[in-house]
Amino acid sequence: MFLAAISVLSFLPIAIASCAHGIEWMHPFSTDIAHGTFSYETTTGPLNWHNLSANNFLCGNGTNISKPHPARHNVRNRAARIALARCPPCAKRRVREPGDERGGHHGGDLMGWQRCLESQTARSPLLLLFHFHAPSEHRVNLAHYEAEMHFVFTAADGAAKITVLVFLIQIGPGSSYPFLENIFSYLPSIPKAGQATQVSRVDMRGFVAHANQMSYYQYTGSLTTPPCSEGVSWYVATTPIPMYVRTYRNLKNTIGSNNRHTQNALGEMNILQVAAENL
Amino acid sequence: MFLAAISVLSFLPIAIASCAHGIEWMHPFSTDIAHGTFSYETTTGPLNWHNLSANNFLCGNGTNISKPHPARHNVRNRAARIALARCPPCAKRRVREPGDERGGHHGGDLMGWQRCLESQTARSPLLLLFHFHAPSEHRVNLAHYEAEMHFVFTAADGAAKITVLVFLIQIGPGSSYPFLENIFSYLPSIPKAGQATQVSRVDMRGFVAHANQMSYYQYTGSLTTPPCSEGVSWYVATTPIPMYVRTYRNLKNTIGSNNRHTQNALGEMNILQVAAENL
Repeated sequence: MFLAAISVLSFLPIAIASCAHGIEWMHPFSTDIAHGTFSYETTTGPLNWHNLSANNFLCGNGTNISKPHPARHNVRNRAARIALARCPPCAKRRVREPGDERGGHHGGDLMGWQRCLESQTARSPLLLLFHFHAPSEHRVNLAHYEAEMHFVFTAADGAAKITVLVFLIQIGPGSSYPFLENIFSYLPSIPKAGQATQVSRVDMRGFVAHANQMSYYQYTGSLTTPPCSEGVSWYVATTPIPMYVRTYRNLKNTIGSNNRHTQNALGEMNILQVAAENL
Repeated sequence: MFLAAISVLSFLPIAIASCAHGIEWMHPFSTDIAHGTFSYETTTGPLNWHNLSANNFLCGNGTNISKPHPARHNVRNRAARIALARCPPCAKRRVREPGDERGGHHGGDLMGWQRCLESQTARSPLLLLFHFHAPSEHRVNLAHYEAEMHFVFTAADGAAKITVLVFLIQIGPGSSYPFLENIFSYLPSIPKAGQATQVSRVDMRGFVAHANQMSYYQYTGSLTTPPCSEGVSWYVATTPIPMYVRTYRNLKNTIGSNNRHTQNALGEMNILQVAAENL
């Protein structure tokens, strides 16, 4: 079920099939893609995913899927009150790969980061893909950010061990984040849905160094896309990363809107089941 | 029921109680406001409004509430395919009030605009309030804009005749729209929920002139907030208006997120009833 989910995810937004070396881009989710599986429209959208396939049962009925989950309080000032737990920054445990010193081969940093994450979770060391949602799926103090980046890690044996790192993205008047600017410089190469482009390399060092210094809220929830499988370990960076407005516009023009509705708190009844009362 | 809806709306986002002369600002919707009525959270949010009060029946059961409704196609290139109908720009019918020439008294323009609208709809000449949603509630080509401004008009006799003019708001790297910049310059005066401030005057002439030159999609739908009353006449400007990023940030910091989920197409089953199947 988890592998099926990831297969679907790879068609969703921007996906990277192979991260360490040659990177393949797939066009973000678009209305032009056949909606055989799911979409972000109405009857094929998040409110009705559970009716599209029996495999999506948990999208409407899971009682612990709770993601996307809003931090109900100001997470900086009231950390003790939020449902998500902080995990310590992992910079000191970062492991560099040999390729790291040779430059050009940036899989080293990526693996170092993965291993760092592994040292936290010991369950999902392999970066499978990363992709974007806009607006954000996680909400802080009930507000959506403009976008959100998901790094999806899985285990080498393909077992049902998924870890997702989340970076909220906030636009600002003069904000730049080289990693995002680099990634999105390739958007013009994939103007149509279903297209892909090869990217020779993506320099992740600056981003990885930053990520290693950040703190994260941690909780166990579900995939935010069908089949909404549970047991996914989520790490949400406590600090958003910035994006240029122009870059954001390009992203929005391509990705449209692809965020799921806000779920109930962890452990509470699925919001769709709550809504179904008296209907 | 319509008047009750407007009473609630006035507590929602930025509301103007008296538009022509002294303008009163109310703080946008915030988590600090008591949620006696409704919110944009989970169990008190849009997916469950129908369970908060018997008056909100239509929020979950209306079969023609259809708003917010996405234009399913590129509205410029495929106008014939969308559900919303264009109404002609009304610049030539604009009527100026005597006060217009004296300067300072900008009710003239406002009334001119109202009368122009009245000449289109002949049912809702009085501007009751205007307020904002972020992200947008209407979607174009399935994507949300960053925000959306609603001008709510009603009839002088208080009858159930509501017309809402919608202006989608799009942030851009160097975009400015003086009317919005002017309005939001008062945000620092109302830092806390429930506070209000008096604004001596708001120059709407530039905005009104622009609005009079725009074209609109027109459809009949419902209020986007409880009690989700139907029979509301919607006019959605076909061109978004721009907003500075910094202004947008200030708006988001205050307003948070307050958009309803996307509804089914006009006349189709309420998306919540569709979702309730198999739950």
